[in-house]
Amino acid sequence: MHFASDNWSGAHPRIAESLTRHAQGFASAYGTSDLDKAVEDQFSTIFEREVAVFFVATGTAANSLALASVAKAGGVSFCHADAHVNADEGGAPEFLTGGTRLFGVEGAEGRIDPQALEAAIARFEPASPHHGRAMAVTVTQATEVGTVYTLEELDRIAAIAKARDLPLHMDGARFANALVALDATPAEMTWKRGVDILSFGGTKNGCWCAEAIVFFDPEMAADMPFIRKRSAQLFSKSRFISAQLEAYLDGNLWLDLAGHSNAMADRLRSGLAAKNTARLAWDTTANEVFAVIEKSSAERARAKGAKFHEWQPPHGWLPLPAENEVLVRLVTSFATTVEDVDQFLEVV
Amino acid sequence: MHFASDNWSGAHPRIAESLTRHAQGFASAYGTSDLDKAVEDQFSTIFEREVAVFFVATGTAANSLALASVAKAGGVSFCHADAHVNADEGGAPEFLTGGTRLFGVEGAEGRIDPQALEAAIARFEPASPHHGRAMAVTVTQATEVGTVYTLEELDRIAAIAKARDLPLHMDGARFANALVALDATPAEMTWKRGVDILSFGGTKNGCWCAEAIVFFDPEMAADMPFIRKRSAQLFSKSRFISAQLEAYLDGNLWLDLAGHSNAMADRLRSGLAAKNTARLAWDTTANEVFAVIEKSSAERARAKGAKFHEWQPPHGWLPLPAENEVLVRLVTSFATTVEDVDQFLEVV
Amino acid sequence: MHFASDNWSGAHPRIAESLTRHAQGFASAYGTSDLDKAVEDQFSTIFEREVAVFFVATGTAANSLALASVAKAGGVSFCHADAHVNADEGGAPEFLTGGTRLFGVEGAEGRIDPQALEAAIARFEPASPHHGRAMAVTVTQATEVGTVYTLEELDRIAAIAKARDLPLHMDGARFANALVALDATPAEMTWKRGVDILSFGGTKNGCWCAEAIVFFDPEMAADMPFIRKRSAQLFSKSRFISAQLEAYLDGNLWLDLAGHSNAMADRLRSGLAAKNTARLAWDTTANEVFAVIEKSSAERARAKGAKFHEWQPPHGWLPLPAENEVLVRLVTSFATTVEDVDQFLEVV
Amino acid sequence: MHFASDNWSGAHPRIAESLTRHAQGFASAYGTSDLDKAVEDQFSTIFEREVAVFFVATGTAANSLALASVAKAGGVSFCHADAHVNADEGGAPEFLTGGTRLFGVEGAEGRIDPQALEAAIARFEPASPHHGRAMAVTVTQATEVGTVYTLEELDRIAAIAKARDLPLHMDGARFANALVALDATPAEMTWKRGVDILSFGGTKNGCWCAEAIVFFDPEMAADMPFIRKRSAQLFSKSRFISAQLEAYLDGNLWLDLAGHSNAMADRLRSGLAAKNTARLAWDTTANEVFAVIEKSSAERARAKGAKFHEWQPPHGWLPLPAENEVLVRLVTSFATTVEDVDQFLEVV
Repeated sequence: MHFASDNWSGAHPRIAESLTRHAQGFASAYGTSDLDKAVEDQFSTIFEREVAVFFVATGTAANSLALASVAKAGGVSFCHADAHVNADEGGAPEFLTGGTRLFGVEGAEGRIDPQALEAAIARFEPASPHHGRAMAVTVTQATEVGTVYTLEELDRIAAIAKARDLPLHMDGARFANALVALDATPAEMTWKRGVDILSFGGTKNGCWCAEAIVFFDPEMAADMPFIRKRSAQLFSKSRFISAQLEAYLDGNLWLDLAGHSNAMADRLRSGLAAKNTARLAWDTTANEVFAVIEKSSAERARAKGAKFHEWQPPHGWLPLPAENEVLVRLVTSFATTVEDVDQFLEVV
Repeated sequence: MHFASDNWSGAHPRIAESLTRHAQGFASAYGTSDLDKAVEDQFSTIFEREVAVFFVATGTAANSLALASVAKAGGVSFCHADAHVNADEGGAPEFLTGGTRLFGVEGAEGRIDPQALEAAIARFEPASPHHGRAMAVTVTQATEVGTVYTLEELDRIAAIAKARDLPLHMDGARFANALVALDATPAEMTWKRGVDILSFGGTKNGCWCAEAIVFFDPEMAADMPFIRKRSAQLFSKSRFISAQLEAYLDGNLWLDLAGHSNAMADRLRSGLAAKNTARLAWDTTANEVFAVIEKSSAERARAKGAKFHEWQPPHGWLPLPAENEVLVRLVTSFATTVEDVDQFLEVV
Repeated sequence: MHFASDNWSGAHPRIAESLTRHAQGFASAYGTSDLDKAVEDQFSTIFEREVAVFFVATGTAANSLALASVAKAGGVSFCHADAHVNADEGGAPEFLTGGTRLFGVEGAEGRIDPQALEAAIARFEPASPHHGRAMAVTVTQATEVGTVYTLEELDRIAAIAKARDLPLHMDGARFANALVALDATPAEMTWKRGVDILSFGGTKNGCWCAEAIVFFDPEMAADMPFIRKRSAQLFSKSRFISAQLEAYLDGNLWLDLAGHSNAMADRLRSGLAAKNTARLAWDTTANEVFAVIEKSSAERARAKGAKFHEWQPPHGWLPLPAENEVLVRLVTSFATTVEDVDQFLEVV
Repeated sequence: MHFASDNWSGAHPRIAESLTRHAQGFASAYGTSDLDKAVEDQFSTIFEREVAVFFVATGTAANSLALASVAKAGGVSFCHADAHVNADEGGAPEFLTGGTRLFGVEGAEGRIDPQALEAAIARFEPASPHHGRAMAVTVTQATEVGTVYTLEELDRIAAIAKARDLPLHMDGARFANALVALDATPAEMTWKRGVDILSFGGTKNGCWCAEAIVFFDPEMAADMPFIRKRSAQLFSKSRFISAQLEAYLDGNLWLDLAGHSNAMADRLRSGLAAKNTARLAWDTTANEVFAVIEKSSAERARAKGAKFHEWQPPHGWLPLPAENEVLVRLVTSFATTVEDVDQFLEVV
């Protein structure tokens, strides 16, 4: 009953097989091998346009270097107040962009509120050396709290960014989960909406370590080879990332895994909603479920071996858990089984 | 006939198997799993003392963050002029240490000359805000040009550093190759010599991606968890590194692989020395061979499929290649075969 | 009728005279002259203990380098949400501390609310590489909106910082104004309250350019000479700062100037309170007055040559100005005259 | 007998007078006052084209921020090995450019050798994330060792930079001294030669503190307001710089002062050349004189109150001082008197 995080899972067997298959032989290093090129081409196919792809080590690196690629002195990037980039990356975005700032924007259920975004940007308009200047907007899809921006919601955010010539970045640590939740194509959920740069995450969805920064306009990426190396994020045996992604993207494995993961979350959601010892904290559609459960239930589940995190109630979210309740986060992954879910529902 | 670099090889079958074996199941993330702990303990065993171990994504990260852990405003780190950290890391050491400087010290055959080191440090003594202050000494073992510091040579460098209270860092991207070349224990080649921090490299010697920063005094590492995260180098599924290292260190696989690699270099050295169309540029003992060969030989070898790099003659190295000659670097790895070597010797 | 800012004034005649007097002759550079030393000693006298003093070019530099001296990877400094350091320094604190973060804490009338401070710090406890770690608390005295922390209020903030071993910094861009408003001694308002580092500002109170970082424990300043030079803030002809400060501190000129400035603000406050076309926005005690006045009054005053800024209503401040009103900031300085004030009161 | 440095002098009476004159009244802050604008226009007049001017606090700031304005990830700036920016700025150029590197190029008597420059740049061609990329060339005029590039020599350096699209920066801490030595116009010695950015120094030549970054193409300066503020180099009472520069530039005071300073150096040169207890170390033309004198002479001079620094013999300079000799640097300034010079010549 592992619901602590999707990064507690390991690697899918087909990912492991691909690594084994490509372990033999020699290939040129630092991202120049045939396999690297083939996987890069695969990205262009999947996104239905020529893209520039840069593998990096972590999702934090993907987000931070995406922002670094558009960094300016005195720059301010707008994200949701509870976004991973703002709350959980240990200052990496600030450090790796040379000291630019993040500005947390409010919004219900993990989505940036468009009006709040406009007001936030307006605080930095017109640009001034004193208060700084707007530099980028970054959205998380799926969000940090299991919700997903609809395509229309992305359009609204993108329109605000575009009207001010601000690049739009998407943190896609759970990109596949969002895609499946929306039943959209990769192109529809990104550049067709106005997204300029994507952090494409494979790690949480069945890879060992596969994160990429995708630029929908390759010209925007001109400095990235230097930015990546300067940040010590250029792998020598780059094909170990490519080997994972080859299997991940092949035959839509990635979407199948995310589909499974989301389905397991659905099963959790339905099961919890039907209980009277638990209630869903808010509606989620991707592979995270937030529920208010009785403390005694939580203890019982833990005693039976269930793993999950208690969660800090988001700013402004109501009603808060009662004295005898607790807000918990449950994350499913490609490796979650029906049995795990049903057992959890039973013990809770 | 792949002699371009040891990072053109893939992963050893036992490394790949270990990754497959550990792909299943769930484990806590960010370096906190049982496997992570077990591998960290294994490091303490191998080095015969309690050490603090931090996995990072690249050798560049290991070197840069090792220096970041001892960084000071106005700091200057002393390395060999041709060291990887100085010549090939795209400014990462400067960037990730917050703008400190590297000072390249001369020395024959890739080893820092002790007298030159003393003179270099003396330029920054006493410390002054104007010219800055000495911050660290960093040696590469094996060196960038295939040589190895003897234990006595390390003692001399360490004595200079210790006399000035400077931490001593060792870039061990080819640590195992040096160890085998010297027939020394890991402890003998590091902390028993005065090394404080080690970049322990597994990638070039049969891993996919396995680099670690090892602190011989764990107290020196107090800030490292923050420094690593801020630099976006903390893996979520950390066990994919641990799984590699478990196999790598098990039953001395790492030393066997380095032993094979060095032996293949020996075979190349002997073969080339016996030829009259080639001569060894300088004596090496690890898995890199530098030779002056006739241009026509080089072309012939390339036509037959041999891969290798031409090399920039090091500053001060004599005699320079003649008009019809070229200096080449040949690197062997765990995956180099006797047949590859013999075929190369034949065609050259 | 100049009420735009206290930095619109020039230099007091005695400051100018001192500069002229010291313009002759030779003196050693970079802060080592007899005059520099004498002024540093004068700081120790004024603060009733041995302090370490570092002149820098701007208040922004003083604040940023004070924080840089206690910076840590993943560090977070707590300030009032509307503090100058957070709102108006163009990212300098983030940049010059190597990418640490500021966290804006709420609080009425420009003062950090102690409970909000505790809650804010608690978000980063225990320290974690993911969310970072508390690094410093910084208060502004007088605050950005003309108010002043009482000694008891400073005690409360200091107690919170000390309980967590966090250094306490005071931005004293208007230090003298606060001192006079409280009728406290420099020692009483700083280290006796628990302040560790002070940005001592002279520029707004009659100097041309005189900002200093004062460390109440000189040992905390060990790295500052390097931090200051690395940030290009070490003046060669340092005595041009010392010459200003010699006159500034001599015979309590600084307190007299601040006293005048505060008195002029008092006159403004009383005058505006007595009007029915204006009301004080909130109570201030230093040299800034915030008032809600009718737009027609503001226009009339401007037409007569009055200079002042409209102000963004602080977050949560009520009641907001009516449609026909505007919130304005009026700043007095050593150079403000009774005539200026009375004329302004008349036209408004 | 003050020959330690030109920054040991104070301020010229006309500079001091101007500061006093402008001390009264109110003026808008942060570089927006009429006086600031007037002085900026004066720069355009002097340089015979529209320029963008940014005042900063120190020469180190001018150099560092000039490089910051053209900084790139993995960037390398080429300077003379003994240039101030490389040897004496405490890491500020590296820090304030976000971790770019300086590469010291050899050259006799403080001037970059064009061939050595080409070879140095070639090491970074073509650009690569591994070794980085060329970013700028910076020359010091007058040089750190009292010599001056001729216009033809500047042309050669500029041609090398331009052929590679590299911006050319000039460190003009002693700009006026060089100008007078060459009898050239400001335009002839800068943009007509291909200089893109100038650090214009007034401090060493009679100002208290007056350093400016001058962009000959204002479009290159678009980011500078943000870069300057982020580096805490934007003065609030900016007119205290302008007031100095108004007097400095008025009626060619700056050139007269430099002329006097150079003439005093000439007098020193002639006098020393005529002695048999001293010899000129190399030929200088600006306001620095380097001489080899007998140790006993140096001691005698010091005993009589003379101030000067012993100097580290430059790399490769021959013949080195004999056992009983010492290399000294003697710097003249606007405040040096004929009597000082003659007395020194007598006692030495």
